[in-house]
Amino acid sequence: KLDLNGILPPITTPFNDDESVAYDKLSGNLNIWNSVGFKGYVVQGSNGEFPYLTPDERVNVVKHVRKNTPEGKVLVAGSGCESTSATIEMSNKMADNGANAVLVITPSFYKSQMTPQALLNHYSKVADASTVPVVLYSVPSNTGINIPLDVLVELSQHSNIIGAKESGGDITRIGQIAHLTKNQDFQILAGSAGFMLGAYAVGAVGAVCALGNVLGAHVVQLHQLINEGNYEEARKLQHRLIAPNTAVTAKYSVPGLKTAMGWFGLQGGNLRSPLQKLSEPQIKDLRQIFVDEGFL
Amino acid sequence: KLDLNGILPPITTPFNDDESVAYDKLSGNLNIWNSVGFKGYVVQGSNGEFPYLTPDERVNVVKHVRKNTPEGKVLVAGSGCESTSATIEMSNKMADNGANAVLVITPSFYKSQMTPQALLNHYSKVADASTVPVVLYSVPSNTGINIPLDVLVELSQHSNIIGAKESGGDITRIGQIAHLTKNQDFQILAGSAGFMLGAYAVGAVGAVCALGNVLGAHVVQLHQLINEGNYEEARKLQHRLIAPNTAVTAKYSVPGLKTAMGWFGLQGGNLRSPLQKLSEPQIKDLRQIFVDEGFL
Amino acid sequence: KLDLNGILPPITTPFNDDESVAYDKLSGNLNIWNSVGFKGYVVQGSNGEFPYLTPDERVNVVKHVRKNTPEGKVLVAGSGCESTSATIEMSNKMADNGANAVLVITPSFYKSQMTPQALLNHYSKVADASTVPVVLYSVPSNTGINIPLDVLVELSQHSNIIGAKESGGDITRIGQIAHLTKNQDFQILAGSAGFMLGAYAVGAVGAVCALGNVLGAHVVQLHQLINEGNYEEARKLQHRLIAPNTAVTAKYSVPGLKTAMGWFGLQGGNLRSPLQKLSEPQIKDLRQIFVDEGFL
Amino acid sequence: KLDLNGILPPITTPFNDDESVAYDKLSGNLNIWNSVGFKGYVVQGSNGEFPYLTPDERVNVVKHVRKNTPEGKVLVAGSGCESTSATIEMSNKMADNGANAVLVITPSFYKSQMTPQALLNHYSKVADASTVPVVLYSVPSNTGINIPLDVLVELSQHSNIIGAKESGGDITRIGQIAHLTKNQDFQILAGSAGFMLGAYAVGAVGAVCALGNVLGAHVVQLHQLINEGNYEEARKLQHRLIAPNTAVTAKYSVPGLKTAMGWFGLQGGNLRSPLQKLSEPQIKDLRQIFVDEGFL
Repeated sequence: KLDLNGILPPITTPFNDDESVAYDKLSGNLNIWNSVGFKGYVVQGSNGEFPYLTPDERVNVVKHVRKNTPEGKVLVAGSGCESTSATIEMSNKMADNGANAVLVITPSFYKSQMTPQALLNHYSKVADASTVPVVLYSVPSNTGINIPLDVLVELSQHSNIIGAKESGGDITRIGQIAHLTKNQDFQILAGSAGFMLGAYAVGAVGAVCALGNVLGAHVVQLHQLINEGNYEEARKLQHRLIAPNTAVTAKYSVPGLKTAMGWFGLQGGNLRSPLQKLSEPQIKDLRQIFVDEGFL
Repeated sequence: KLDLNGILPPITTPFNDDESVAYDKLSGNLNIWNSVGFKGYVVQGSNGEFPYLTPDERVNVVKHVRKNTPEGKVLVAGSGCESTSATIEMSNKMADNGANAVLVITPSFYKSQMTPQALLNHYSKVADASTVPVVLYSVPSNTGINIPLDVLVELSQHSNIIGAKESGGDITRIGQIAHLTKNQDFQILAGSAGFMLGAYAVGAVGAVCALGNVLGAHVVQLHQLINEGNYEEARKLQHRLIAPNTAVTAKYSVPGLKTAMGWFGLQGGNLRSPLQKLSEPQIKDLRQIFVDEGFL
Repeated sequence: KLDLNGILPPITTPFNDDESVAYDKLSGNLNIWNSVGFKGYVVQGSNGEFPYLTPDERVNVVKHVRKNTPEGKVLVAGSGCESTSATIEMSNKMADNGANAVLVITPSFYKSQMTPQALLNHYSKVADASTVPVVLYSVPSNTGINIPLDVLVELSQHSNIIGAKESGGDITRIGQIAHLTKNQDFQILAGSAGFMLGAYAVGAVGAVCALGNVLGAHVVQLHQLINEGNYEEARKLQHRLIAPNTAVTAKYSVPGLKTAMGWFGLQGGNLRSPLQKLSEPQIKDLRQIFVDEGFL
Repeated sequence: KLDLNGILPPITTPFNDDESVAYDKLSGNLNIWNSVGFKGYVVQGSNGEFPYLTPDERVNVVKHVRKNTPEGKVLVAGSGCESTSATIEMSNKMADNGANAVLVITPSFYKSQMTPQALLNHYSKVADASTVPVVLYSVPSNTGINIPLDVLVELSQHSNIIGAKESGGDITRIGQIAHLTKNQDFQILAGSAGFMLGAYAVGAVGAVCALGNVLGAHVVQLHQLINEGNYEEARKLQHRLIAPNTAVTAKYSVPGLKTAMGWFGLQGGNLRSPLQKLSEPQIKDLRQIFVDEGFL
């Protein structure tokens, strides 16, 4: 079973001034990230601006990342589309281009119709057809949809579904998932650095956190401190990470994350419209948050 | 200026058993609808399952509908994508294939980033670049996003933005839009048959309503009764339409609408997964709702 | 059956500087309002700061209003409490002190437990025990709770429940209530001046609107225009009322309403903490809204 | 400074068949609870049905609990009312009757007006006037309101505000509160047994959890395991507590909790209307949840 224990940052997709994909910037970033102790990468999580990429671009970005990533690192590719058929097609194209697993976000347009049965069918069909393992992905702040607990537990029994990325931050739910899937060796990934310690305390084994793009070494250290049982140091580090994490996710989202990348030797590049660059006061505020916790 | 005064049903996209687009069923439906007094059609509104169509399919369906629709009828095509650039490209392809206007849904994935400024930029760029007029489209139940009132009013002054489809049902907002755009001859379309009379009372001039797929003649009659000032009969008809309308929208959504189409000589066809067919009890309940109001 | 056709403003409760009830200011206001063509008053609707009054004050305010109101005007008193027993006791005390009917807000603290059955029981018990007729009251923006449509329809058949104040502004729901209660002569009151015309178009017969506190004559005129079938003039007036209405409700709430009262010869008086006075920029903005629509 | 490190169950208020307070049942329960290793009790938290008690009953229940509780145990009394003045009055009456601290829920009726400034003023005035220390209380599922993080941090510097009960379960927020108040020795209490371990991991020092009413010894044990640094055993116990905890809170609320009390030798007593007794299938489901985790 593919091992996801560790930190897999959901990497950003840099764009050029004309909004085309900046493959050179992406390679440059990977070159730096490869020397951090990441377990691997998530390509085209929410921070990868995947909804703004064409189907061809989505596959090409995965291919490019694979080419620039050592074989030993795990590549999880976000392949979710609204329809089941498009998700299957995208999953297998990504697998053909080097993805070791696919991360499948909940379909969400017809919210009222995303019943337990609909989600169960969708994920079962995708997992049946995918040539690589599937990781479930709930991110209610973007989709307005969560996978119901009992659906998730039923899906955990599918041999090709190996884990879930939980981005909602509901620690009670994460604990209950860990409890109810303990016999399936189902791997729960915290979807944010903001609640990593809490999530690990109740059973998460890894994290897919945007903050890893900029503070990768610190996030990896938090993972290690927890695994060593050093809860006191872990708590101190966790505390320092919360504000920067909130700043590059809930508060300033991808524009904030790409801005911060520049301060850490990485290339955020341009955004795709309708995402907007941060204003000067926002940039100043964002920077101060990193300064306040001693990261700049 | 393109005249949208009238009923433009957001037509469904029928699929074959293998989930491919059933172009023959679509032609058959249009053949029937063409004899109802519709102003035109909306292709790929929310009821058209557009999030489940590939970019090529989206264009082809528009082309097919245009071919099967008399020239005098207005064709409004839903061209919205998450990115601004994809929306522009889709808008112009649809225009090239016969759309008289495009309906542009709010981008919604990065909800917290869809600020007034971001929406203003997005719609301005699309309207600048689109070769046909643009209709704004807010449908919070699907997207979790609404175009703020002041943004909408500012956009109403763009020469290539001719109206808005309001699906949220907020009658106060509709009245205020009518009031604040009265000098722009901005055309407000009620996004549902459930609140048509109320919306017209405060200034809407047309309606894009799912119920038109099945009860087209009645919806057209409601439009006429209101325009004739026959509010008493209008109210009676409006009352009868609410429950069937809710049944094929909020309650049973596209699966309900496609099921009901069969009862009115139309071909709903298959759905695309993850949408699920109604269960037998749901079908029975749906049918009873139409029976109760005397439509079956 | 008590006739509620008309405008019944939900009057504010003025306080002195020490936050005690300013009965003299209240009398002064009533003296002015009594000459406007109101059907009556709602005492201790949401605009009356009833959650901030002690049980004794609630009864005393009703008594005071009755004493200062001509007999021919209807007095509807907000008697809702969280528990059924307290609501019954309050209803009957208010009736003993001159209320012609009671307005009963949905209990809302244990939101998940306010099931259809719980609401049905609550209102049935209150209506059984109340010595005056009951008006149902849904105001989701304050309570997070709505009375489900089928519960409301079932309650409409209770001989001591004579109507409902609908403050949510869902015009589809209002139309459906009117349709499903047409044989009960159930009286629907629009809960805001913002959607009065739309609500009347589908069956409302009166309005309980905060704006009546300051623009009473205009709201009464809107009621008359609609009843005369003069929809064109009604629409124009409705349009002018929306922004001022939003300003004294959703935007600036009771603090805004009390501030505006001073501009129309009335005495808003102090607020009770934790409500806060408007800031100077807010007051300026509020005033401009009334100026823009020609009311100041 | 009053020490809140430990478990303080928010005890229920049993009622007789006629819905009067069942003081004898309450004494009986306390007699049992006094031998569990609780730090003390919260009287009239959300589980105490405080919104259904009259002002006099609220004080009398506190007095009765104090009389039946050993002096060494801390008594925290829920004194929150909608108005600031009523909250102050209630706080001091409760203090006079034996409360060692008061728990003050956010006012919530005028949600849009509960601005940061309004909450800051409210809590500052209450803390200034209260004769015993104040504990802040956020419970968004009941109130729809949360105390903004920066307001809470500012309030933590008030000498008479000693802690906060966090019931929202947002572990990121809890971690950030702990981080930002580390110099104030501000005591954070987890508001539910469902996320206790996670909350303690990031800095909570105690818990006010409904589940303590029925599984008190286990919740106390979880507190001890964490404090001993035995995270492995703590996790196992935490996992077992989640489903029963959810069952007596989010799922079946106070009716579920009172039902379960009977299975553990305690007397839940009657509810006050509009709360409804559980149905037989609900009782069966609830019991099975406790059986499944080995508690029955």
